[in-house]
Amino acid sequence: MGIHTATVKPWSLQEACNAFAAKNVPAITLWRDAVEPVGLEAARKMVDDAGLRVTSLCRGGFFPAADISGQQKAIDENKQIVDEAAALRAPAVVLVCGALPTLSLEESRKQIQDGIAAVLPHAQAAGVKLSIEPLHPIYAADRSAVNTMAQARRMCEQLNDTGKNDVGIALDVYHVWFDDALESEIMQSGEKGWLHAFHICDWKAQQSDPLQDRGLMGEGVIDIKRIRNWMDAANYQGDIEVEVFSTRHWARDQHEYLEDILLAYDNCM
Amino acid sequence: MGIHTATVKPWSLQEACNAFAAKNVPAITLWRDAVEPVGLEAARKMVDDAGLRVTSLCRGGFFPAADISGQQKAIDENKQIVDEAAALRAPAVVLVCGALPTLSLEESRKQIQDGIAAVLPHAQAAGVKLSIEPLHPIYAADRSAVNTMAQARRMCEQLNDTGKNDVGIALDVYHVWFDDALESEIMQSGEKGWLHAFHICDWKAQQSDPLQDRGLMGEGVIDIKRIRNWMDAANYQGDIEVEVFSTRHWARDQHEYLEDILLAYDNCM
Repeated sequence: MGIHTATVKPWSLQEACNAFAAKNVPAITLWRDAVEPVGLEAARKMVDDAGLRVTSLCRGGFFPAADISGQQKAIDENKQIVDEAAALRAPAVVLVCGALPTLSLEESRKQIQDGIAAVLPHAQAAGVKLSIEPLHPIYAADRSAVNTMAQARRMCEQLNDTGKNDVGIALDVYHVWFDDALESEIMQSGEKGWLHAFHICDWKAQQSDPLQDRGLMGEGVIDIKRIRNWMDAANYQGDIEVEVFSTRHWARDQHEYLEDILLAYDNCM
Repeated sequence: MGIHTATVKPWSLQEACNAFAAKNVPAITLWRDAVEPVGLEAARKMVDDAGLRVTSLCRGGFFPAADISGQQKAIDENKQIVDEAAALRAPAVVLVCGALPTLSLEESRKQIQDGIAAVLPHAQAAGVKLSIEPLHPIYAADRSAVNTMAQARRMCEQLNDTGKNDVGIALDVYHVWFDDALESEIMQSGEKGWLHAFHICDWKAQQSDPLQDRGLMGEGVIDIKRIRNWMDAANYQGDIEVEVFSTRHWARDQHEYLEDILLAYDNCM
């Protein structure tokens, strides 16, 4: 079990580490904006001192660009993010792969796959895995052209050497809950060892914002228990990470909110 | 070519008929809320006097319900909508199939298929076709559990007698533009004669509202021309209907807006 720093965004990294440790949360998912104010070394020390495991660093990606120099810039930035992950002892970087409104989805997907391929040797050398997060089709125009588990799996097939899982998938229930191929895709990727991460939250039928009005588990329509059972059946061994972007919950006392997170977590397992 | 009454929502049906006729728009897609204030007979006369073809009546559907009596109520209402379509000489009713946050998608889909099956004999007797509109996954929780062309096609397979197209598909680019199976699905449904309708508008990368901030063709990211070419290749013979829900455009002078619609239509063909 882990919690993303973005879930408790009002907290500094130190506050999050203290609160997670006090509540016996075993793992933390680091977002770059939480690390940046203190720097890599201090961040790693905070996490270590709190006895927390780091699941991954969020996030790299955003590969598609209008021209070659933009594409190269994205590749260079992703290599730097890999270095940050290594310094933080994060075993993986989660990729929100990107999309440009001015490019076709096919072109964006091609640039994504080429971009990951260009970063991969650097990531392998650093011992950091790359986790493609398929994003809900609502984000297809400008945040990610990878919108299904099947698309992410096919990229893993193209990018990994045989038997390897250097490139895998970060499954977030928010993005894939409606996919009628979800169970089958989880099984196929699980067999290959490509299920890197499992993010949970909930999909509210009515949302005030397309990015920052996610529900806490139980506040929406997703049958998380069922998806969790599929992940178990696919031999997923990693943490189950709570990733909720919510201006509504961020406006609350974050200690009370953390209590609710832990309760909601237990209720959906 | 046709335009939905909902596209020019501020206009009464009479105003829409007058304006469409003056601009040589050949067809109109009737929404029930535009018909209701004047009644079926007067609506039909307005449309006839304006020399407009009716493409379809929008909309039936919303089959899933919490209990049997709710499901029966939805079936009865859809039969009534079929009767309205017949009275308006609309060849088809477009179905926004429905979904309930409290039901699994599988259960909602089952109720949708059962509901359509229950309405179908009535529709056949009335000479009215039923057109399933797959809706974007953003609406999966509460507006439609049919979210892909493939799901709609499989329902057509289940519901139609061999060689028939009494149940078909209303393809709206807004809902399916990102689907990497779109071309193949259009071809498969086209072969069977199941492509009942083709709705166009655009997907804006940034939207202020999940329902009423659609773009006019050219304002967003969809390659409409490419999808239109697929529809042509699949032998789609029906009208191409402009269906834009936009508080932004509704706030404008609708005559000026109609000019823009016609220009945008020409530009995307």
